[in-house]
Amino acid sequence: MGENITRKILKSHLVEGKMIAGEEISIKIDQTLTQDATGTMAYLSFEALGIPRVRTEVSVSYIDHNTLQAGFENADDHAFLQTIAAKYGIYCSKPGNGICHQVHSERFARPGKTLLGSDSHTPTSSALGMIAIGAGGMSVAMAMAGQPFPLVMPRVINVKLTGKLRTGVAAKDIILELLRRMTVKNGVGKVIEYSGSGVETLSVPERCTITNMGAELGVTTSVFPSDRVTYEFMKDQKREADWIELKADSDAEYDELIEINLDEIEPLVAKPHMPDKVVKVRDVSDVKVSQVFIGSCTNSSYSDLAKAATILDGKCVNPNVSLCIAPGSKQVFEMIARDGILQKLISAGARILESACGPCVGVGQAPQSGGVSLRTNNRNFIGRSGTKDAKVYLASPEVAAVSAITGVITDPRDYDGIDLETISKIKDTKERIIDDRMIIAPKDKTDDVVVRRGPNIKPLPLRGDLEEEINTAVLLKVGDDITTDDIMPAGAKILPLRSNVPAISQYVFNGIDPTFSKRAKENNGGIIVAAENYGQGSSREHAALAPMYLGVKAILAKSFARIHHDNLINYGILPLRFKDKADYDKINQGDVLVVKNVREQVSKGEFIVIDKTQGFELKAFVIFSDRQKEVMISGGQLNYVKKMI
Amino acid sequence: MGENITRKILKSHLVEGKMIAGEEISIKIDQTLTQDATGTMAYLSFEALGIPRVRTEVSVSYIDHNTLQAGFENADDHAFLQTIAAKYGIYCSKPGNGICHQVHSERFARPGKTLLGSDSHTPTSSALGMIAIGAGGMSVAMAMAGQPFPLVMPRVINVKLTGKLRTGVAAKDIILELLRRMTVKNGVGKVIEYSGSGVETLSVPERCTITNMGAELGVTTSVFPSDRVTYEFMKDQKREADWIELKADSDAEYDELIEINLDEIEPLVAKPHMPDKVVKVRDVSDVKVSQVFIGSCTNSSYSDLAKAATILDGKCVNPNVSLCIAPGSKQVFEMIARDGILQKLISAGARILESACGPCVGVGQAPQSGGVSLRTNNRNFIGRSGTKDAKVYLASPEVAAVSAITGVITDPRDYDGIDLETISKIKDTKERIIDDRMIIAPKDKTDDVVVRRGPNIKPLPLRGDLEEEINTAVLLKVGDDITTDDIMPAGAKILPLRSNVPAISQYVFNGIDPTFSKRAKENNGGIIVAAENYGQGSSREHAALAPMYLGVKAILAKSFARIHHDNLINYGILPLRFKDKADYDKINQGDVLVVKNVREQVSKGEFIVIDKTQGFELKAFVIFSDRQKEVMISGGQLNYVKKMI
Repeated sequence: MGENITRKILKSHLVEGKMIAGEEISIKIDQTLTQDATGTMAYLSFEALGIPRVRTEVSVSYIDHNTLQAGFENADDHAFLQTIAAKYGIYCSKPGNGICHQVHSERFARPGKTLLGSDSHTPTSSALGMIAIGAGGMSVAMAMAGQPFPLVMPRVINVKLTGKLRTGVAAKDIILELLRRMTVKNGVGKVIEYSGSGVETLSVPERCTITNMGAELGVTTSVFPSDRVTYEFMKDQKREADWIELKADSDAEYDELIEINLDEIEPLVAKPHMPDKVVKVRDVSDVKVSQVFIGSCTNSSYSDLAKAATILDGKCVNPNVSLCIAPGSKQVFEMIARDGILQKLISAGARILESACGPCVGVGQAPQSGGVSLRTNNRNFIGRSGTKDAKVYLASPEVAAVSAITGVITDPRDYDGIDLETISKIKDTKERIIDDRMIIAPKDKTDDVVVRRGPNIKPLPLRGDLEEEINTAVLLKVGDDITTDDIMPAGAKILPLRSNVPAISQYVFNGIDPTFSKRAKENNGGIIVAAENYGQGSSREHAALAPMYLGVKAILAKSFARIHHDNLINYGILPLRFKDKADYDKINQGDVLVVKNVREQVSKGEFIVIDKTQGFELKAFVIFSDRQKEVMISGGQLNYVKKMI
Repeated sequence: MGENITRKILKSHLVEGKMIAGEEISIKIDQTLTQDATGTMAYLSFEALGIPRVRTEVSVSYIDHNTLQAGFENADDHAFLQTIAAKYGIYCSKPGNGICHQVHSERFARPGKTLLGSDSHTPTSSALGMIAIGAGGMSVAMAMAGQPFPLVMPRVINVKLTGKLRTGVAAKDIILELLRRMTVKNGVGKVIEYSGSGVETLSVPERCTITNMGAELGVTTSVFPSDRVTYEFMKDQKREADWIELKADSDAEYDELIEINLDEIEPLVAKPHMPDKVVKVRDVSDVKVSQVFIGSCTNSSYSDLAKAATILDGKCVNPNVSLCIAPGSKQVFEMIARDGILQKLISAGARILESACGPCVGVGQAPQSGGVSLRTNNRNFIGRSGTKDAKVYLASPEVAAVSAITGVITDPRDYDGIDLETISKIKDTKERIIDDRMIIAPKDKTDDVVVRRGPNIKPLPLRGDLEEEINTAVLLKVGDDITTDDIMPAGAKILPLRSNVPAISQYVFNGIDPTFSKRAKENNGGIIVAAENYGQGSSREHAALAPMYLGVKAILAKSFARIHHDNLINYGILPLRFKDKADYDKINQGDVLVVKNVREQVSKGEFIVIDKTQGFELKAFVIFSDRQKEVMISGGQLNYVKKMI
């Protein structure tokens, strides 16, 4: 039996376990990345382990999220990240150098390698034929310490691409089509592997758009083969020495097959407030927009911006629209400046933002109240833009650029003012500007490095050992698809508190119930009851860490998103699942729930939960590996590892 | 007797009064400008007057301050400003189009005309031979309504420039030298008029740097002649039709003479925390910097950025420095993109920010805690950067660029890596890109325009008539040089509340005494006692409006800054001055002060203030014009004008 790419890479990195779908394995991690919003906690965790230097091949600390600097907190975080990187042998990509996934794919991603990143869109780099996985900062800290990364051996879905995208249709539309078919719920425990003749028609940046937004499907990662296209990209990046060919065997087996004929795809858009609410652009062509954003780790490559510029060339942004554009990296920024692309964008009236995540994560450019924002990024969760009642649509740069001119959501094929044929042929430049001076390389000798800690950088709070009995109230009952943005909001006002758990904890569930944090403290903790897919979205471990700090003992849900499930265990919160999902309806907010003999039940993975208020029992379970059981009983990952070292 | 330029323009615009220094005159205003932070209140005031269309030649609403958009408030303000501009026949310069003073000097400033702007740096445009004055938003609203603008006939200082700047010395150093000599205290009631052979050696953007920072001297405005240099600039802007020659008569008289030999000036820097703390750059060359900012209405022209780029070409920002650059206007941004300047800046590692005020007014890029920031802007007041304990130095773009490379404050003449001779010769481009598409021109028909009011835009609060007796406690006693930043802080967190006086009032004196607002409310108002130069700095009328909302009845000070003095009267707060400055020392915070028969005393301009707590009396006065007495008795400007119309 032939092997697929996923199994090949996992096999070559396997440390423990059997490669049987659903069983826990652990793999060696070659590379790690962090960004600043998750990074401060990741490095505080790493530091707590007492190891003198990272044990990976490459570890990179990117500063790309909190770059507005509305107060001293952001700049202090930057200084902390830069100095702690220097201390422990980590590369530091300075603010302005670009978005982690864009820069990593340009400068560090390597076929056949593994990458663990404390950002849910880390799978972007899998476009170059590697296994890149998003995880909590704690998991990344463990990987930096040389610990193997535990994961459930995934099922592998073969997405077979045939044909070729038509004029006006973009790589973004491929992943939107997949979201339309699979929704955000059906990817957990799976890896997508792309194959078929359509693959070679896609450039590496186009592949990155697709693997990036695989995160919205909930899959562990999305892998493209490493082929001649990959080679050419890496050669342009002067990294051809790092290239290897990596393809599935011709008789490779997969757990599932999805076929997509690229010829049949049309320009698509995800409607508010979920990336899988996908319809044809033409179906919403009457929607007026007040803002358009082109950028983010999904769509900020040279060709993305070159296409937008060619559409906007000689035109002007609609008077009622604010168009903002953020190049994905310094490399992209410099190249579009060199090639006259930037001038076209400025001329058309685009507001040029620093090369960073920016509006995508609600860091600036919040839309007007009730406004409609059309964006090229990957998520449109309610409130994520920074404006609670804004309506965010997701589409390709081509759709975004045309809509910025017309003022309504517009299919590029329905706009006469452009030569769409030419625009569709725009590819990435071959003349890459290679300049890593804004990535501070680690030195051999680091004894003299002093880590700078501003007053907002507080020590990582730890939980004690697991209690023998949980006896506490249901503080909040929520429905399906609760995102980590719902649990721990981001945005320009809250993100600067990421290094200060006591302060940020005041905002837990702030959008859903602003009294939550106060009630949790008064109650000395509690339990949250949820429905399907709890904790989807960003990898942010603060969505586990801050509730832990507030004393939350367990989440009782119908199902969990993968990264968040692991984050809960890492911070000592029980991720209980209903054995009978119908029990969800029985529990009321405010009920007191009791779990006795917790440690014994953890060791079995089976739980009896007593609803003391209503006087009934229900069954629950946790899908634990043996290691995770130990972690849980230790009260979290850091306690567990400290015991081991 | 020959006339100077100032008198010529004032004479041609005189509506009332005698042109005798110290007497109140009123003049016709040809042009107005607002920016978004002061503009929302200015337009709410204008709207309250019930006039269908502005009565000026040109009125422009710029959006350049609050462009971060950390929440919905900024974008709502932008939409309000754009729609209310359309409603009342006002140009609207959209966010991203640039900083008001830079754009106004490029596209609207006209020799011989008068301009009133609700920003203290409005005098920038006087570099083109006009009288441009900063004022509160209320005054600008009155000017838009066609009311003559009242001001005290200024004394005119002739600043005679001879010689020529040496290599490495910039226009910025001329104004820093003047600040060193005059300090921030001695400009009130004066206009500076530049003359001498040195004038013709300075380009219009260089003149703008000088007139811009005249605001820091406290002068009403700073005027350059309109000469061939002005003509060439306006011709490049395709506005030569608006040019007239305007020079002082050869025998013109002045009230004062200051001579500056440009040959003798050295690179200078203003130390924290006041623009007049000026020393030679070489005197502080051991100071490490963590941040450098090149931009703001003082130094963001094409030649400023071209010089910085030439210095940075092929070099890299010091690893310990964050260099951020914001071009002054879309015109500048597009031209530096066209000419390869932008690429050099990006390549060297500069963080490119949107064309806006940004860091200068604490809107983003707050330095790290305790950090040293070297900036090309005009003010370095404590806390204005957004970081309370940051130390801000002010210098030229040349000094800033070199220091960004070295990591310490550096005189460009002491840095070997550049050809300073060539850099000093860089002038503005002749090939201007003229494109006003981001300035939305008003239409003739405006009946169908609907003004968009977001939920954060609250009606302008009004005060009732003046009380017959003031009997209230001294809520706060402060020292010299209290800035409007001290009274009403700006920055990314507070600025979005500018359209919502009840909300922003909670931050009055927040940096000096965070309990002030609460105490004022509990006390139902109060009095503030201050020393010299109270209310210097930004024109922000919120520094009068918000205290008025809190019930503050009077400020008792040794002296006032001009704009703030007028703002206090405009909002019905008595600007009392100690007759005997020694009385300042006698009063304690908490003392209850009484002023009886207030209206009668206002009509005299002489006041008896009783310190009820300590049991003594003191004399005070207000320099009132007859009109201002009426305004004061009416309880503020809007009440007064409404009675008239």
